[in-house]
Amino acid sequence: MSKLYFASDYQEGMAPEILNRLTETNLIPVSGYGTDEFCESAKKKIREACGDENTDVYFLVGGTQANAVVISAVLRDYEGVVAADTGHVALHEAGAIEYTGHKVLTVKGDRGILHADALKEYLEGFYADGNHEHMVQPGMVYISQPTEYGTLYSKAELTALRQVCDTYNLPLYVDGARMAYALACRENDVTLQDMAALTDVFYIGGTKCGAIAGEAVVITNRALVPHFFTTIKQHGALLAKGRLTGISFDVLFTDSLYEKLGAYALEKADEIRASLKENNWQFFFDTPTNQIFVVVDNETLKELDEVVVYSFWEPFDETHTVIRFATSWATPEENIEALKKLIAQYGNK
Amino acid sequence: MSKLYFASDYQEGMAPEILNRLTETNLIPVSGYGTDEFCESAKKKIREACGDENTDVYFLVGGTQANAVVISAVLRDYEGVVAADTGHVALHEAGAIEYTGHKVLTVKGDRGILHADALKEYLEGFYADGNHEHMVQPGMVYISQPTEYGTLYSKAELTALRQVCDTYNLPLYVDGARMAYALACRENDVTLQDMAALTDVFYIGGTKCGAIAGEAVVITNRALVPHFFTTIKQHGALLAKGRLTGISFDVLFTDSLYEKLGAYALEKADEIRASLKENNWQFFFDTPTNQIFVVVDNETLKELDEVVVYSFWEPFDETHTVIRFATSWATPEENIEALKKLIAQYGNK
Amino acid sequence: MSKLYFASDYQEGMAPEILNRLTETNLIPVSGYGTDEFCESAKKKIREACGDENTDVYFLVGGTQANAVVISAVLRDYEGVVAADTGHVALHEAGAIEYTGHKVLTVKGDRGILHADALKEYLEGFYADGNHEHMVQPGMVYISQPTEYGTLYSKAELTALRQVCDTYNLPLYVDGARMAYALACRENDVTLQDMAALTDVFYIGGTKCGAIAGEAVVITNRALVPHFFTTIKQHGALLAKGRLTGISFDVLFTDSLYEKLGAYALEKADEIRASLKENNWQFFFDTPTNQIFVVVDNETLKELDEVVVYSFWEPFDETHTVIRFATSWATPEENIEALKKLIAQYGNK
Amino acid sequence: MSKLYFASDYQEGMAPEILNRLTETNLIPVSGYGTDEFCESAKKKIREACGDENTDVYFLVGGTQANAVVISAVLRDYEGVVAADTGHVALHEAGAIEYTGHKVLTVKGDRGILHADALKEYLEGFYADGNHEHMVQPGMVYISQPTEYGTLYSKAELTALRQVCDTYNLPLYVDGARMAYALACRENDVTLQDMAALTDVFYIGGTKCGAIAGEAVVITNRALVPHFFTTIKQHGALLAKGRLTGISFDVLFTDSLYEKLGAYALEKADEIRASLKENNWQFFFDTPTNQIFVVVDNETLKELDEVVVYSFWEPFDETHTVIRFATSWATPEENIEALKKLIAQYGNK
Repeated sequence: MSKLYFASDYQEGMAPEILNRLTETNLIPVSGYGTDEFCESAKKKIREACGDENTDVYFLVGGTQANAVVISAVLRDYEGVVAADTGHVALHEAGAIEYTGHKVLTVKGDRGILHADALKEYLEGFYADGNHEHMVQPGMVYISQPTEYGTLYSKAELTALRQVCDTYNLPLYVDGARMAYALACRENDVTLQDMAALTDVFYIGGTKCGAIAGEAVVITNRALVPHFFTTIKQHGALLAKGRLTGISFDVLFTDSLYEKLGAYALEKADEIRASLKENNWQFFFDTPTNQIFVVVDNETLKELDEVVVYSFWEPFDETHTVIRFATSWATPEENIEALKKLIAQYGNK
Repeated sequence: MSKLYFASDYQEGMAPEILNRLTETNLIPVSGYGTDEFCESAKKKIREACGDENTDVYFLVGGTQANAVVISAVLRDYEGVVAADTGHVALHEAGAIEYTGHKVLTVKGDRGILHADALKEYLEGFYADGNHEHMVQPGMVYISQPTEYGTLYSKAELTALRQVCDTYNLPLYVDGARMAYALACRENDVTLQDMAALTDVFYIGGTKCGAIAGEAVVITNRALVPHFFTTIKQHGALLAKGRLTGISFDVLFTDSLYEKLGAYALEKADEIRASLKENNWQFFFDTPTNQIFVVVDNETLKELDEVVVYSFWEPFDETHTVIRFATSWATPEENIEALKKLIAQYGNK
Repeated sequence: MSKLYFASDYQEGMAPEILNRLTETNLIPVSGYGTDEFCESAKKKIREACGDENTDVYFLVGGTQANAVVISAVLRDYEGVVAADTGHVALHEAGAIEYTGHKVLTVKGDRGILHADALKEYLEGFYADGNHEHMVQPGMVYISQPTEYGTLYSKAELTALRQVCDTYNLPLYVDGARMAYALACRENDVTLQDMAALTDVFYIGGTKCGAIAGEAVVITNRALVPHFFTTIKQHGALLAKGRLTGISFDVLFTDSLYEKLGAYALEKADEIRASLKENNWQFFFDTPTNQIFVVVDNETLKELDEVVVYSFWEPFDETHTVIRFATSWATPEENIEALKKLIAQYGNK
Repeated sequence: MSKLYFASDYQEGMAPEILNRLTETNLIPVSGYGTDEFCESAKKKIREACGDENTDVYFLVGGTQANAVVISAVLRDYEGVVAADTGHVALHEAGAIEYTGHKVLTVKGDRGILHADALKEYLEGFYADGNHEHMVQPGMVYISQPTEYGTLYSKAELTALRQVCDTYNLPLYVDGARMAYALACRENDVTLQDMAALTDVFYIGGTKCGAIAGEAVVITNRALVPHFFTTIKQHGALLAKGRLTGISFDVLFTDSLYEKLGAYALEKADEIRASLKENNWQFFFDTPTNQIFVVVDNETLKELDEVVVYSFWEPFDETHTVIRFATSWATPEENIEALKKLIAQYGNK
């Protein structure tokens, strides 16, 4: 028996609908660098989904790339980006932000969430310091929806953040690498229209939500990033065959495929969560999206290693470890059933 | 009738063989970031094709990206890259090299070729200047094969460049965005094995040679770029689903598909060239590969505009323009026939 | 009455001995960019003081500049610098390190000290993380002697740090902005020779220790930073009239003036400390060098504001504040007497 | 006999008036980082000399530093600076501009002058290119007054450049490293008031005009560079003891000392020029300021080497060399007499 893959949401290729469309259109010649008709169509659909015809949409290839290109485009040299200390940009991007010359200014987060109060306290403290001109100026705020920990900002929380940003004249940017799993979540009350209304820039993740590669950067505050095309090229992030990302998002935004793929993953995650609860597994903390964090004793882990591919998260204590199960648009039903059996087998009765 | 596309070699999707393999493997879960079995297989085949088991191979997504990542990884901060004044890195990459902090040091090229003599003269002049420690230090040499003008380095020329590089202890890097069209060219005498033997790093272009996206960076001088994986990530150039580029190169390097795709494009280019000669069109200069540069009077051009998509290159004089026709692995036979008719129609009898 | 200045050690001009020498030599023409005879003489004396004829010495103008130039010269692009979370490079340099593309990797410090154990624990944790190639690689270690909090590394502590650095193959760099106040300290057991023996690079601070501007960078591991002259120029840090820093250090390293200036400041600081203790002032924590941190109630502070210029450090609690008194080579005797009277007046009997 | 120094205008220390003032004020304690009263006074005088109370003035330490800090502060990431191909920023600054991530876009100059016509032609060509979004965007214009070749822009020429800049919405920046030698020149018709009126930023050079170190950056277009203080710090360019540059410029702008120092140097240069003409020396080209370029046969040069220190400029032909004599505020009368004798001795009768 081959192993059960629950390591991540980027282990399979792409949604079959995208593959079909790539196949159908493969030999149609089009112009390069994202100026083709597929990209145009995708942008139109994304603008409609965001309820804002005046946004700019650009397609990039990956999440770290999107973060580095957007953040460096928004900031002036003397500015840094404010993020939760658990933010992807702060930890797991090999210094991609610093490589563009900018410091990541961290604020203590709460299960991945940067609370408006914490942001406000940080900014008040910063400007209260008489030496603040000797320090990196806060130039924008970075959050992710869902967060790196699978948690969600509510509309109220996002609005509160927006207000703090407005007070300090800071653009707000949202990393939506796993946006499909937020949009489709029962607990979520933040729509794409809200996102467009409350942020200056955000990106809709494709790579982890059904595309083989691609992130759609939505710029609602267009004056913020002039010549963004040139900036993308300068970062080596301009795809010659823009059709790849154009077609991917054109398909994802046809007939709500994007949300549907998310909904499938969440349904499967809910089944796993229910099974874990029923069998008294210990949650590291509760999450409503496609990432599930549990605390497992290391003996059990050794046995699981033989049959499941999961993500190591962090040590919990001497004898326990935090691991992550992730579902996706591609998780097969039978794997869920098989995992549920394992959950029952290793649960605490 | 739709127009005839001869604008570039990146206007269609991907070689059907790659698309088939993507389809077959689409739902197989694999690990991310280029650590999957498809990448491993592709790397193995590329190493074999290069006749060097000790090379490192990494997959990137585009040419400007490959140049920026490789060049900044090779250079120390105080160094610049020496290139022909027509080099892609010097002109058309939106300052991607300078963005990494490095100057492009240009030497007069000859139809895209950086001659060993010109390089030597530049380096001698540089070190003869008593103030050279006040200037950017030459840190590596960049060339492209074929060049941006479709011309080729011979093995003798490449060997001569290597010798100058050795004299000055400079790594030699080759941009092979269109490598397939060099390898398959009748006039070419530089094999992949020669490339591996004579350079420190080079890349084998996929995007312009049959893949939808992907460039294979081959590092023969492995000590030159430690932690290249981290460097790739830092540039936002690490594909989460490495399978896309892995599968592309695995297929391209199976049964010599890469050279076959190149050979097809060159055969079609030769037909166009023969037709142009026969009908007395004026070549801007002669090229043996898949890019053909001709001088066209502006009246003719207006009529061509209605039926052909070509590349504008540069003004020739007040009444004439240099344009480029490019063929590729995907150019349909019938387009060649149709273009030949136009060539005959507008030729100078 | 004018106020008593105890705000910092850079409020006066320069040691009179330096001013005299600048005056004597003012009209002697010499070559530029640090190639003059004054620089040569100063370098020779510094090498002798370090007991190592094979060090390279370069003169820079300020501390942040020295840190940015040295750190970016030592690191490869994919590397960051490890520092205590209180390190000057982490907080108060306006992102000068990040501007060069590098992350500052912080480890919890203890009153400014980066303990060898804490460093070891950090490095062990870093390499234990399976994803560490996705993160900034630790590339060197930064400490300051004395620290930003006026505390000192003992020779044993410095040796322990060196051992951890050796284990992980990391260069060790010491910021000696206030080195004179370490060298002259009764509690200090780390000589310049030890510094040269135990570090790869360090700098001997001039600006805060008697010069009007100037820091002497001592490179004991010369292979680490080739073409450092070009690097200095590239950072805009090359003084055309190198005589300014050359003469400053030539004088500071004649007849042990550097240590003598430090010793004077420490003697005066000791007098203040004795007076504070005698009058039951609350120390924030004890320090042996020229910076003294005390906790003062805010009512007293208001009155002090009228007569003393001190440094605000940080709020202590709702009703108290941490302030700093600093002495220097230039602190007048009569100011010490006047401050002592104030200390007695406001002390807790 | 010691040699005659005519190598440059930065071989002596500082104008005695500055040294006296440094001496008088040496022990007065002041606040750091350019917030002291000397800097305030100097800024006030510079604003008055520029006839513009609304300019911002900042003091930096050297010319390359000023160029790198100003240019990177003005440009957005995707922009480059346009300069004559002979511009100091293009050639002799060790890539300091590129190190900040920006390309220097060169236009053919004429004896150091960037003509308005040449600039216009370059910009027209740039925007005519359909691919210009793939290229570095022109973001500002750099010139120097006097130029690196000792030539001068007339007010008419400067006005014409300003008009081209206005057409293309480009800030104009002037490097005035040797501004004193322009202002004091009989042929000059560009005053400091004109400079302030016609440019967005310029700097008044101190290092080559009487100060031991220091350049005064004058920002007339203040909205262009917010948080410039933080930017200066980020570049490691913030002097802790700002009094050094503050006092220097306070003295230089008292009683027109700056122009007087320039006038002295020009008077001496005129004497040399007259002597050269009288004795039929070959000028490389004519210049009105303190730099004189002559063509000398290599045999004569060998003999001159024994008695004069000059600057090697470039080879002229197989048997001749271009050299530079520079005068300064500090050139002794007797050296002029001695040089005149040599000029007569080696002249072509």
